[in-house]
Amino acid sequence: MNGAETLVQTLVDSGVTVCFANPGTSEMHFVGALDGNPGIRCVLCLFEGVASAAADGYARMTGAPAATLLHLGPGLANAGANLHNAMRAASPLINIVGDHATYHRYLDAPLTSDIEGLARTWSAWTRTARDARMVAGDAAEAVRRAYEGRGGISTLILPADTAWGAGQDAAMLSQPPPVPIPSSACIENAVAMLRNGKRTLLLVGGRALRSADALDDADRIAQAADADLLAPNSNARMDRGGGRVSISRVPYVVDEATDMLKGFNQCICVEADTPVAFFAYPGKPGHLLAPDCEIHVLAHPGEDGPAALAKLCSLLGSGHIEPRHAARESNRPVPPGALSPVALGNALANRLPENSIICDEGLTAGMAATAATATAAPHSLLQLTGGAIGIGLPMAIGAAVACPGRKVIVLQADGSGMYTNQALWTYAREKLDIVAIVLSNGSYASLRRELHNVGVLNPGPKALGMTSLGDPDIDWALMARSMGVHGEKAETGEAFDRLLAEALDRSGPSLIEANLSSL
Amino acid sequence: MNGAETLVQTLVDSGVTVCFANPGTSEMHFVGALDGNPGIRCVLCLFEGVASAAADGYARMTGAPAATLLHLGPGLANAGANLHNAMRAASPLINIVGDHATYHRYLDAPLTSDIEGLARTWSAWTRTARDARMVAGDAAEAVRRAYEGRGGISTLILPADTAWGAGQDAAMLSQPPPVPIPSSACIENAVAMLRNGKRTLLLVGGRALRSADALDDADRIAQAADADLLAPNSNARMDRGGGRVSISRVPYVVDEATDMLKGFNQCICVEADTPVAFFAYPGKPGHLLAPDCEIHVLAHPGEDGPAALAKLCSLLGSGHIEPRHAARESNRPVPPGALSPVALGNALANRLPENSIICDEGLTAGMAATAATATAAPHSLLQLTGGAIGIGLPMAIGAAVACPGRKVIVLQADGSGMYTNQALWTYAREKLDIVAIVLSNGSYASLRRELHNVGVLNPGPKALGMTSLGDPDIDWALMARSMGVHGEKAETGEAFDRLLAEALDRSGPSLIEANLSSL
Repeated sequence: MNGAETLVQTLVDSGVTVCFANPGTSEMHFVGALDGNPGIRCVLCLFEGVASAAADGYARMTGAPAATLLHLGPGLANAGANLHNAMRAASPLINIVGDHATYHRYLDAPLTSDIEGLARTWSAWTRTARDARMVAGDAAEAVRRAYEGRGGISTLILPADTAWGAGQDAAMLSQPPPVPIPSSACIENAVAMLRNGKRTLLLVGGRALRSADALDDADRIAQAADADLLAPNSNARMDRGGGRVSISRVPYVVDEATDMLKGFNQCICVEADTPVAFFAYPGKPGHLLAPDCEIHVLAHPGEDGPAALAKLCSLLGSGHIEPRHAARESNRPVPPGALSPVALGNALANRLPENSIICDEGLTAGMAATAATATAAPHSLLQLTGGAIGIGLPMAIGAAVACPGRKVIVLQADGSGMYTNQALWTYAREKLDIVAIVLSNGSYASLRRELHNVGVLNPGPKALGMTSLGDPDIDWALMARSMGVHGEKAETGEAFDRLLAEALDRSGPSLIEANLSSL
Repeated sequence: MNGAETLVQTLVDSGVTVCFANPGTSEMHFVGALDGNPGIRCVLCLFEGVASAAADGYARMTGAPAATLLHLGPGLANAGANLHNAMRAASPLINIVGDHATYHRYLDAPLTSDIEGLARTWSAWTRTARDARMVAGDAAEAVRRAYEGRGGISTLILPADTAWGAGQDAAMLSQPPPVPIPSSACIENAVAMLRNGKRTLLLVGGRALRSADALDDADRIAQAADADLLAPNSNARMDRGGGRVSISRVPYVVDEATDMLKGFNQCICVEADTPVAFFAYPGKPGHLLAPDCEIHVLAHPGEDGPAALAKLCSLLGSGHIEPRHAARESNRPVPPGALSPVALGNALANRLPENSIICDEGLTAGMAATAATATAAPHSLLQLTGGAIGIGLPMAIGAAVACPGRKVIVLQADGSGMYTNQALWTYAREKLDIVAIVLSNGSYASLRRELHNVGVLNPGPKALGMTSLGDPDIDWALMARSMGVHGEKAETGEAFDRLLAEALDRSGPSLIEANLSSL
């Protein structure tokens, strides 16, 4: 076996069985190795930012890393924005980045750049392979490090000669390290806080949001101690819907968040960082909790939040309390006429299939949908975690590859969707069961609001032009068809409701352009 | 004036009059400043990789930097691949990257990342503004450094509070530094070499390729000394066509290049690096000149090659020699029936408008066109310089903005074109005079060849799938229309010839999908 073959075999033996790839010349031996190994599935992406978002979506649904295959520094840079999101989602992920042969680098050929320096921007672990015989070990280490802590990105740079040179035969097995459980002292501290009579916020993120049992325990604790329960503003994954504990999130808008949080004297964090403002605004605070709010970390991100909650619940003696589950609704009104965000959200919530997955990059236009689906059929919600736009369409690829039996729905803002529209081609190539809903309001609506916030009250033609996606309007239905995806357009509530029903019935990909521009 | 306003005024005063922008929340004060300053044009790009390629194209045609406006680390990462190409083209370019307010960074909000570390991958100069009062000076320094040496990328990171805080009134003026002229000793050394009777290669790049006079001088020198004249394989810009000295390029394929270069005993470099293999291949050399070939640098990149050639020509006493100009052809055969690369290239060369600009990312399918246009009407040819694919469509934006009176033609390979297809929307928004020809062969054809080169002689379904763009085919004409650009499809030589004539007659953008897939 050559180095590339030992690398692929090690990945497969360590449970990495999918590679989202955009290969180039220097990766041809790796492509040959993928070709020859039946244990790994290859998914071609026509842009590297699609590959990295897909690997992130895959990790959020499986807990396991997928590999990406990227072409030198520029390929890694293209993957970068969605690697940033994956880093913020704490998704385990393994980048394999091809590079020039070790002895070719000093020539400074046109594609040469500082790949290691670039990789460190997003990677918890970065290594350049030095010898084909060591590549299997490098790969095993990459897998191990991707699971470490809260989960992270490993980047293994593979010079061409370490791929084509003779590798060592035995591939190595890498296993995820155990998840640490918080100490008894830490849990007893929380018990004391919950009994001291102060107003308490229980802020729950991470694994607990993926576990119905953990959310039941969190709600029992909140009821027993008369505490409030909240989740961070954005989360890698929340399993939610009717029949589960419904957990609100800290608002994005600073004034709303500080208003909601100002009354808490103490905050217990479970796999959640203390909330901060997404951006700074003149004269507004950065920390969103009150300055004198006492903070206790029950479980750090990467520790076992569900186990900590179970133990806390038991120490409080509240295991008998009935958790408050959200009622499931199915007949929300869908007003006819010009399509509104509420009509869209209600139609989606009514029709959401059991056990589906929502990839949410709806931003301003998608808020109503996210609210309505809180009482829809149980589903997984994957959010934009790092603020790098362009994740929605491609993240769905990874979710669909990870969960072949589950319908995937994308709520995609139009401006952000343009960043990685190439994802649609992979939907068609892989015949993925995805319904992409593009929320088309013809503008960077968030920016219009922000422009006003910074005092540009009467924006001129340049400022308006830079926050408008009109002139020309983007025809998303046509764009979908250009890449082999069924595309339709809805301008009314009733049309959207009908097209959504049809798209959900169809097997394979569809895109619905939800035209909200008349609002 | 606030910091952002002093920044914009300094850019304008220093001759930076175009900004290719994709703004976000943290850049709203900068957008406000652009809005209020009539001296700068703003061009909205729907992806940052479009903005960076456009700025590169602008610099190649004007010699002056444009600004980009990018949104924190992810925006910069998205711009990265085409910044790599700009770096390799030695294009002066100024990135303005928004960041969190200085006092907000320690909160590690979701969009926080190491922007400076990232910027250094591609920038000759990187600075984070520290105080609104110093931003005008930072901007002046950014412009000066972009002109330094062979030309490069300046990245100024602008924390939000340095944009909204009070700036110092007086903007500062930045002027390009003078271009150094090689010493007399250096030129006399070249004279001696050209008279020693050895076989000599005159390798000419950089500014000399943009100057008819310099190419005349280079050809006179070659004739006088019985030397050969070549250009590097890829060049930021070559002004060429009938009536000018035609200069061949060092081939991309290693065996062809070493074969062409093996007979030279000495090489005189004029604003050109010694040629190296683009990639390493087992058993093949990295340096393409013979190992014992003596190298003399007449002008380093960034020095004044045309002046050095003029002086050398005069010292050799060869100013009287008639330069050999390429004859201009206009009636190449365009075979009817299934469209071939040769038919496409000949039709383009026949119809190429006087003084047009070709942005060439045709790769494998475009070689015939690049060959045919050597004897077409005089034009500028802009090439892929850094090997980071996805530059063709967006580079044309910058060329068109720089040269409103000149027709811009893009030769775009389909796989690479998908990387930055969002460029088409800006064509329509700005009504740019661009004809994009997408060379659609339905595969990463270069990779098919490379797969064979590395020994995958019978690729399996995975390897074939990863180098194929079929299943589904991409409908480029439809994609163009989805973004407001006139789109057509040609499957025969005669159809292509007709559509090209129509597109060149039309004012505003067109796209022709040249379907070569039957070959």
